[in-house]
Amino acid sequence: MKLLSMKEIRIKDKFFSEYMHLIRGRVIPYQWEALNDRVEGAQPSYCMQNFKVAAGKIPGKFMGMVFQDSDVYKWLEAVGYSLMWSPDPELEKIADGAVDDICAAQQPDGYLNTYYIINGLDKRFTNLKDNHELYCLGHMTEAAVVYYQATGKRKFMDAALRYIDCVDNIFGSEQGKLHGYPGHEVIEMALVRLYEVTKEKMHLALAEYFIDERGKQPLFFEEETIRNQNNFHWRDSYFKYQYYQAGKEVRLFDKAEGHAVRGVYLYSGMAAVAKETGDEELFRACERLWDNVTGKQMYITGAIGPSSYGESFTFDYDLPNDTVYGETCAAVGLIFFARRMFEITKDSRYMNVLERVLFNGAISGMSLDGTKFFYVNPLEVVPEASDKDHNKSHVKVERQKWFGCACCPPNIARLLSSIGSYAYTKTGDCFFMNLYIGGDMNTTVHGQEIGIKVRTDYPWDGKVKISFTREEAEFSYALRVPDWCGDYEIAVNGERVNVKPVKGYVYLKRKWKKEDEITCNFKMEAVLNQANPNVREDMGKVAVSRGPLVYCLEEADNGADLHQIRIHRDTAFAEQYEKDLLKGVVTLTCEGEKQTDTDWNENTLYRPYKEPVYEKKILKWIPYYSWANRNAGEMSVWVRADS
Amino acid sequence: MKLLSMKEIRIKDKFFSEYMHLIRGRVIPYQWEALNDRVEGAQPSYCMQNFKVAAGKIPGKFMGMVFQDSDVYKWLEAVGYSLMWSPDPELEKIADGAVDDICAAQQPDGYLNTYYIINGLDKRFTNLKDNHELYCLGHMTEAAVVYYQATGKRKFMDAALRYIDCVDNIFGSEQGKLHGYPGHEVIEMALVRLYEVTKEKMHLALAEYFIDERGKQPLFFEEETIRNQNNFHWRDSYFKYQYYQAGKEVRLFDKAEGHAVRGVYLYSGMAAVAKETGDEELFRACERLWDNVTGKQMYITGAIGPSSYGESFTFDYDLPNDTVYGETCAAVGLIFFARRMFEITKDSRYMNVLERVLFNGAISGMSLDGTKFFYVNPLEVVPEASDKDHNKSHVKVERQKWFGCACCPPNIARLLSSIGSYAYTKTGDCFFMNLYIGGDMNTTVHGQEIGIKVRTDYPWDGKVKISFTREEAEFSYALRVPDWCGDYEIAVNGERVNVKPVKGYVYLKRKWKKEDEITCNFKMEAVLNQANPNVREDMGKVAVSRGPLVYCLEEADNGADLHQIRIHRDTAFAEQYEKDLLKGVVTLTCEGEKQTDTDWNENTLYRPYKEPVYEKKILKWIPYYSWANRNAGEMSVWVRADS
Repeated sequence: MKLLSMKEIRIKDKFFSEYMHLIRGRVIPYQWEALNDRVEGAQPSYCMQNFKVAAGKIPGKFMGMVFQDSDVYKWLEAVGYSLMWSPDPELEKIADGAVDDICAAQQPDGYLNTYYIINGLDKRFTNLKDNHELYCLGHMTEAAVVYYQATGKRKFMDAALRYIDCVDNIFGSEQGKLHGYPGHEVIEMALVRLYEVTKEKMHLALAEYFIDERGKQPLFFEEETIRNQNNFHWRDSYFKYQYYQAGKEVRLFDKAEGHAVRGVYLYSGMAAVAKETGDEELFRACERLWDNVTGKQMYITGAIGPSSYGESFTFDYDLPNDTVYGETCAAVGLIFFARRMFEITKDSRYMNVLERVLFNGAISGMSLDGTKFFYVNPLEVVPEASDKDHNKSHVKVERQKWFGCACCPPNIARLLSSIGSYAYTKTGDCFFMNLYIGGDMNTTVHGQEIGIKVRTDYPWDGKVKISFTREEAEFSYALRVPDWCGDYEIAVNGERVNVKPVKGYVYLKRKWKKEDEITCNFKMEAVLNQANPNVREDMGKVAVSRGPLVYCLEEADNGADLHQIRIHRDTAFAEQYEKDLLKGVVTLTCEGEKQTDTDWNENTLYRPYKEPVYEKKILKWIPYYSWANRNAGEMSVWVRADS
Repeated sequence: MKLLSMKEIRIKDKFFSEYMHLIRGRVIPYQWEALNDRVEGAQPSYCMQNFKVAAGKIPGKFMGMVFQDSDVYKWLEAVGYSLMWSPDPELEKIADGAVDDICAAQQPDGYLNTYYIINGLDKRFTNLKDNHELYCLGHMTEAAVVYYQATGKRKFMDAALRYIDCVDNIFGSEQGKLHGYPGHEVIEMALVRLYEVTKEKMHLALAEYFIDERGKQPLFFEEETIRNQNNFHWRDSYFKYQYYQAGKEVRLFDKAEGHAVRGVYLYSGMAAVAKETGDEELFRACERLWDNVTGKQMYITGAIGPSSYGESFTFDYDLPNDTVYGETCAAVGLIFFARRMFEITKDSRYMNVLERVLFNGAISGMSLDGTKFFYVNPLEVVPEASDKDHNKSHVKVERQKWFGCACCPPNIARLLSSIGSYAYTKTGDCFFMNLYIGGDMNTTVHGQEIGIKVRTDYPWDGKVKISFTREEAEFSYALRVPDWCGDYEIAVNGERVNVKPVKGYVYLKRKWKKEDEITCNFKMEAVLNQANPNVREDMGKVAVSRGPLVYCLEEADNGADLHQIRIHRDTAFAEQYEKDLLKGVVTLTCEGEKQTDTDWNENTLYRPYKEPVYEKKILKWIPYYSWANRNAGEMSVWVRADS
């Protein structure tokens, strides 16, 4: 399975074009300013400053988080993608300058981490549990691959290769080497990505090493902690070393535990290795983890990691809507995991989840103008509770400009600037259409050049028109039938086809000719959803969705006290595209009810049961991802249903 | 208004006799062992050890919490009460020994706090915000008064008086004196209690000073913090100095904020002062606080302080059942506040709340065998969540033996060992029966000796028989009509009386003769309750009560997944006294339903709405206070109602 390169794709799509322009025109320039501490009112990043200090260009101390280096890497990755679909010599020059600054700090043996270069190289690789060196290298590697693919320039790539050689010399299962692994995963999937380009066996082997060494007895992190006589923050926690997914060997995992971002990054790395090596046992572990994460620990928005304590997974069916963490990065990481599982299996179940996460819990992390970001993506918000209840103090009612720990903003940027390569993949003689994103593609399938034009108003409308723009080519065009869709039609040149989907994909194999046309109509309508009855917090409640989008009620449309609202299970929805609202959204309206007992005395909290009084109320729903783009107010995804 | 002394009361009542015996026979001896660090498997107290170290009898350091002294004071208060109704030379000898140990540590100028005596007297009264010296003195004073009343021995009382003289010399609004006040209140109500015995104006004036100085600008605690260059833990919190109820003058308060126990202790002190001084403005502040606490921030069990962060009040109608704090001490403190408000107003609304707290959120703090204690009193518990969700890690599913911070166990002990004096109070020619507790009373009303015999099975049955055991006496016998009671009958010598209650009390004024008999029948039945619709967490749910008791479902009787249960609003309850269950309780059973959809696939979390499948299920309810006395399991007070 191969991803299309973003060079092969021109996205032309009302929904994603807007995001692409935002990433290119606003987010990337804004984040560059942030990385250079030039955004007024935002927390300083110190990221580029650290590189200059490390290179000896300016005096100073290391500032910011220990993993601050990674922010510019994620930014460079986003820039790389952007240069593929929107070449821009000026941006490339800025990025080249960033690469120069980065490389200037590289040590003679390849080592490159500003925290230790500034604070003392004798301490490097002595606190893998906490200090994120290998995490930064992982992001460096991912960025270097993309930047090389985008520009053909080798400087950054060569720097990454040198650092990886250095790490390979130090780490490994052989005697005399350090039997360590990263406290925060990402290097595993990065090394496989590098391997896909270099075909250098060591790169894959090193990824395998980091995965297989993890959690072996005696525990490296435990010994490291003793050696350092330092604090093990999670000693008294429920997860202990599983906070790092390092309490046991990864092949023994059967549920997601600990820090959610680290978790899905590791699982992505495991899947990436399993794909390359065909390791069945490793793949089975991935499957178990996938089933657990998406079948027992995922919000309807695709958000994962319900607890702010350790930004962590907790336990099956524990999905509180109001104290949720649901970090943007965890959603992005789940997308990474989903894609790799799909690449192995060609099963739409992975892409169905990917779509759910993308359209809901991932893009909710960014404001519609691309300048503000959520770390936490709640499903229920009451502003007063965020202010005054410590358990909800992490739940912000407005997106923030930039964070001291700014992992999420550049993560969204690199995801969205590469979104086309998630939409289209290919293997053998088969071209997969995973996401319905409009655009023009020119690529090769099975050695044949093909051109494809996709036009759609997705996610507002389920009609998709696909036409071929080149001469004859024989291959399978595989279309994902989204899991939200109960009724669809697919036609070729106007003639309806009735092909039974295989693992959720309809395969249309033929000799495609220029101007052949596939039309799909995935019928979208508003749907009431219910949660598995094991989900305590959603009991007796429903959530509204339409197509891939989960909807929510906001105070701006429906007034405060959203908890007093309930809807009838047979309620009918009207839909309307409102082009001036929230950059253009389909809103839903339905009749609901609001409890309006007026006979409560001022200071009465409890009384014998009386039938509550409900008044009819028209409810207006907006797509979840677009919430908190007006005034701060209440929001709720799950709403009580009468029974 | 005057309380009856526990010397005048012999409790004879199935419910409370059991508690009294438990306090006397188990809790007091157990706690003495705990105070002396002789309870295996419990956290050491160090309390008595500290006194011996402070007196120079043994070498050592100060150990335990900074307010460790207070534990023995609360214990001595309980012992004092106990000696009133159950003289016991052996226990008195032990208590005298404790008093000797305490007094041996007293300094020549009267000062007596082991933390500073051991760690350096030069620092005394320099960290009033955090270090609880005046709190310990408050508890010392309360204990000394009771111990003096119980035994007539002056040693402990004199020690307290000397320490108070010392404090009066140091603190005050006069120039040159320290304008401080306690970080943790209790001394205010203690001084008024002392004043009731001594009639020494200084004692009342000092209480007034501590109340009036509180929160004055410039803030004493702010200046102290600067002086000490120490940490102000709540700097970034919502409550800031209101954590200590010290952000503004107390007369300006209109809602309960900050640490809940400190709050209700202060309000009790304010009410106590207002009662003695007739200070209308202060009383109005108490009324506002009462209305806010009980009308907007109290659980149906009478628990208060919903947040574990700062053990604090949060905001109106914020009453989460599963993350609740609801500290036992806060419930006890609310009882103190209620009694004092009643003493001023003779209004049953205060006693109604007192009864609710006592029978539910207060006694739930102690196991039925008197050896284990809850600090936190939740209304909904899922054991797995307490284990794995950090937001609920303070919610224990089993009571604990003893705490390092052991404020709650001795607080319950002193409450229950004095419970009779809450039941009966008197003023002028009026004798108030506030709580229906069986027993024999001999006291004086308006100079006349009276004897009263009360027989009842309360709280299991609302029938109360009151008979007079002495010759003629003319006075009003005032009976509280409980707020939970919609239907009652009162008869004198078999003849029904129809007297309209005044502020919830039926006043029967006559010349009572020997063998006159009042019979009351407060009809008890199971009631479904609903919460004010502003209480987000109870929306669509009901709670069951019978008489003063709130009920709950436990896993032991109803299986796990209590959240899948719902009941119909018209469900009928059967009641049964089960003498062998939980030391004898009336249980309730009713028909309910449990969601039992069987068509959910193993790894499916969400799906389009389908009518859930419910199966009939007999539900068994037990009194809330008795939960967690069998195996650890789920518990829930609020249950979904169909609509």
